Amino acid sequence: MYFLEDFPIGERIETGRHTFGAEEIKAFALRYDPQGFHTDEAAAARSHFGALCASGWHTVAYSMRFLVQHRDRLIAAARQRGAPVAAWGPSPGFRELKWPRPVFAGDTVAYATQALETRRSSSRPGWGIISSLNTGTNQHGEPVLSFIAAVFAECREK
Amino acid sequence: MYFLEDFPIGERIETGRHTFGAEEIKAFALRYDPQGFHTDEAAAARSHFGALCASGWHTVAYSMRFLVQHRDRLIAAARQRGAPVAAWGPSPGFRELKWPRPVFAGDTVAYATQALETRRSSSRPGWGIISSLNTGTNQHGEPVLSFIAAVFAECREK
Repeated sequence: MYFLEDFPIGERIETGRHTFGAEEIKAFALRYDPQGFHTDEAAAARSHFGALCASGWHTVAYSMRFLVQHRDRLIAAARQRGAPVAAWGPSPGFRELKWPRPVFAGDTVAYATQALETRRSSSRPGWGIISSLNTGTNQHGEPVLSFIAAVFAECREK
Repeated sequence: MYFLEDFPIGERIETGRHTFGAEEIKAFALRYDPQGFHTDEAAAARSHFGALCASGWHTVAYSMRFLVQHRDRLIAAARQRGAPVAAWGPSPGFRELKWPRPVFAGDTVAYATQALETRRSSSRPGWGIISSLNTGTNQHGEPVLSFIAAVFAECREK
């Protein structure tokens, strides 16, 4: 489990993959993003997207799920080898959330995270902030989402 | 239904309200943000939040739902009075997504949108981009989420 100093800057780590089925696309969108191209195949066919596609909030939610599961795997691995487990704090926020292409029903998105930089926090001694680029890429290798996350992490050197 | 020129710059428009129940908080988080303080009351009580609270992706998803419903009400009202209905395009993205405070089980969030500025698109003649500040405020008047959205809208003056 990474302390601030341990993050592998620049290394792209795949966190998980998900294939978006038509039923879950519609169920999510009916509740959270009720636009025709997310909730109905016929309306989607008439839209500028041309086919049913997932809400961007749905595709980014999987990004969070896989980030949490990735962190939990790091914690489990650290515990197994008796290594200290660093605390990760809340996120001050996210920046530059983009959905450059739609995710159509049946598409498989590969999610990845890449640490961009770390810096020590001036307001919170013993802690720092990691900025990471989080991405989703479809089965054709095309980017479908990206955002920059900032998360607090404990420093090894206090 | 607003053309680019019609957006009421600076006017705060409440789009909807939602009270977050414990069961839906846990159901969303189990799927999309499986962290203990979102999925389990006892784990949440031991966390730095102190009580069960909603995933930020859950609270922001309602923001989208209410924005879509607000737009649909504007479209319906324009049609009813025989006014032309402007097209709104896809969103190039969102910026500065922040969750300044947790949303606890039982909290009611009031969602609002406020147009900040409009500008004509250089790449897409006859269209422009609206930037809007979207917020959520809890029953104590405290901000719980905010983000800046950019959305394409048709111009009245071509």
